Amino acid sequence: MAAAKTERGIPLSTISPKYLHTNSTSHTGPFSAIAELIDNAYDPDVNAKQIWIDKTQINNKGKDIECLTFRDDGNGLNRDLMHQMLSFGISKKKAVNGKLPIGMYGNGFKSGSMRLGKDAIVLSKSRNDLCVGMLSQTYLEEIDAKQIAVPIISFYEQEADNVMEEHQASLRDILEHSPFNTEDELLTELHAIEGPTGTKIIIWNLRRTSEGNMELDFTTENDIRIICDDSGTSVPESHSSLRAYCSILYLEPSMQINIQGQRVEKHCIYESLDYIDRSYSYKPNIVKKRIPIIFGVNKSKQHYGLMMYHNNRLIKAYHRVGCQLKARNRRSIGVIGVIECNHLKPTHNKQDFEDDKPYRNTIKSVACKLREYSGI
Amino acid sequence: MAAAKTERGIPLSTISPKYLHTNSTSHTGPFSAIAELIDNAYDPDVNAKQIWIDKTQINNKGKDIECLTFRDDGNGLNRDLMHQMLSFGISKKKAVNGKLPIGMYGNGFKSGSMRLGKDAIVLSKSRNDLCVGMLSQTYLEEIDAKQIAVPIISFYEQEADNVMEEHQASLRDILEHSPFNTEDELLTELHAIEGPTGTKIIIWNLRRTSEGNMELDFTTENDIRIICDDSGTSVPESHSSLRAYCSILYLEPSMQINIQGQRVEKHCIYESLDYIDRSYSYKPNIVKKRIPIIFGVNKSKQHYGLMMYHNNRLIKAYHRVGCQLKARNRRSIGVIGVIECNHLKPTHNKQDFEDDKPYRNTIKSVACKLREYSGI
Repeated sequence: MAAAKTERGIPLSTISPKYLHTNSTSHTGPFSAIAELIDNAYDPDVNAKQIWIDKTQINNKGKDIECLTFRDDGNGLNRDLMHQMLSFGISKKKAVNGKLPIGMYGNGFKSGSMRLGKDAIVLSKSRNDLCVGMLSQTYLEEIDAKQIAVPIISFYEQEADNVMEEHQASLRDILEHSPFNTEDELLTELHAIEGPTGTKIIIWNLRRTSEGNMELDFTTENDIRIICDDSGTSVPESHSSLRAYCSILYLEPSMQINIQGQRVEKHCIYESLDYIDRSYSYKPNIVKKRIPIIFGVNKSKQHYGLMMYHNNRLIKAYHRVGCQLKARNRRSIGVIGVIECNHLKPTHNKQDFEDDKPYRNTIKSVACKLREYSGI
Repeated sequence: MAAAKTERGIPLSTISPKYLHTNSTSHTGPFSAIAELIDNAYDPDVNAKQIWIDKTQINNKGKDIECLTFRDDGNGLNRDLMHQMLSFGISKKKAVNGKLPIGMYGNGFKSGSMRLGKDAIVLSKSRNDLCVGMLSQTYLEEIDAKQIAVPIISFYEQEADNVMEEHQASLRDILEHSPFNTEDELLTELHAIEGPTGTKIIIWNLRRTSEGNMELDFTTENDIRIICDDSGTSVPESHSSLRAYCSILYLEPSMQINIQGQRVEKHCIYESLDYIDRSYSYKPNIVKKRIPIIFGVNKSKQHYGLMMYHNNRLIKAYHRVGCQLKARNRRSIGVIGVIECNHLKPTHNKQDFEDDKPYRNTIKSVACKLREYSGI
């Protein structure tokens, strides 16, 4: 196949369907992938008040398909925004009323959804549009695609829910390769989005372990868990329980997260701390304002270190620094520091910061203050 | 701009020039980005015997441009391979004579080069082809591109080094936006690649720190360093010296790496260990063969943990496990374990493994053996 070219005859870089998997390997586990989809609902362009995360089954030709769904009551997506979401590197998010966007790279939906399962469909109700888009590795394999085709349809709501003529090919492919077999089924699902606007993401062919089991465990009531059979070594609850992870995902939560039918309680990070001290702060030399650091002692004492946020979103959790890394200083065991580092640059998967001088200076300074707080 | 569509009228996912930066944020620092380019020379499709990494200056219209260059004596790239390298997710690498490829995701050149600088040009001499390709964020900004255009030219070597007619637009853009202003300058650079085949990558507009200094420090003779001014906290030499990093990058080096004019000595990982014990091994239940683990004690004792390789390539370094994480067990301080984990899945940036059950089982088992070796 000859490469596509610009009008002037310059070859274009292409993007292979296999890249969907490549890109998803950014996430070492499923929770950071789920966080990308939560961020998209939270960010000011969508500005959802609520998000519901559920496991459901969709009956497709007599077969039950296990799905993970994310539904929000945000602004919804029109056709252009849907195409941007299914493309790479297009992010037009900006601050609204002082709320800073978490997304900035234009990659979260792709890396997140494709980490959780092989296939995703997005149904959205915006002010003037009903719109459906599909990003599906199984589909692309089945049609032997060389590029990433993303079927997108929108409906004329006024005209008895008809799909536009030019979207008929997309409609055919969605009905053939998604869990929805008829236009009616799609419309029923779209109309099931309550409220004036909102978006529902359905992910299927959910990731399985090498033994063939589902990666996520849905058996605990009102939670979604990662099975950690690491007997002996204990991991923080937020590593294995999505409910616990979501409870600390935002420093100041403004959106209600609901998991398997139950609201997530907010602000557990402070509730789990004793001896809270809010008198510390840090002044990076690249910004004007001092940044508060809140120290406390984890009631369980097992898990400790810095909880580092960026634009309100948790990036690194339980990151041990300074004296906490040494065998001797036992006084710093259990000490938690909470800091919002908007001056640092998050990495691709939003689980770390770029290891540059501002980052190293921040760690060094906060480690000093942690030492002081610990009375060492 | 209307989205491009397939022949059947399905929209295609597009990839914005900004995604080049997005994708590069996978690397938290420059060394893992450099490793991607070294891997490409090492892998069996290119199979270089030598790679030379240098900082050079190229004079462009009377101005000296600081460049980082990677030259190898491997098989070189023809036009099709060049286009694949400048595209996303196309990897056709396979094992040759038992040598397993490190690359598998079709992303290393893009994420690596664009982490090191804003712009890159690739010059290659293969058996039948002289070929030049450019991936440049500055160029794409200057032409206000909506997609990633990658100018590529090849020369008819027989016919007095003429650029094919259909590549004239690419040639014009390369001469206008790269450090080479004439076709002659390009050809001189191509012919300067010694030996019958080989590839030279030139990266310019090298990354600078927030203070405006060069991120990499080239002032140490025969090395390329990251300036770590973390007084007090000591980091392993391989975190700040590219020479030290390259010396342990491959478990069994088959390619000679040269940095700023001097060969990198091989196998420093074992040379730095005392009390080497090769009697340990681990049998993951998903593979048939036992995997040897080599334990030793780091002479410096400051840095310790597991050195985890995948297909001969270092993924995680100094990863502390089990008793090394606890305050008590001082006997395990300084203990290094070396293991090649081909049964695990590396992440996007090849600096970690997917956090799945085989990974957790491996860490758990190796931690037990490390405990035994440490005499705890």
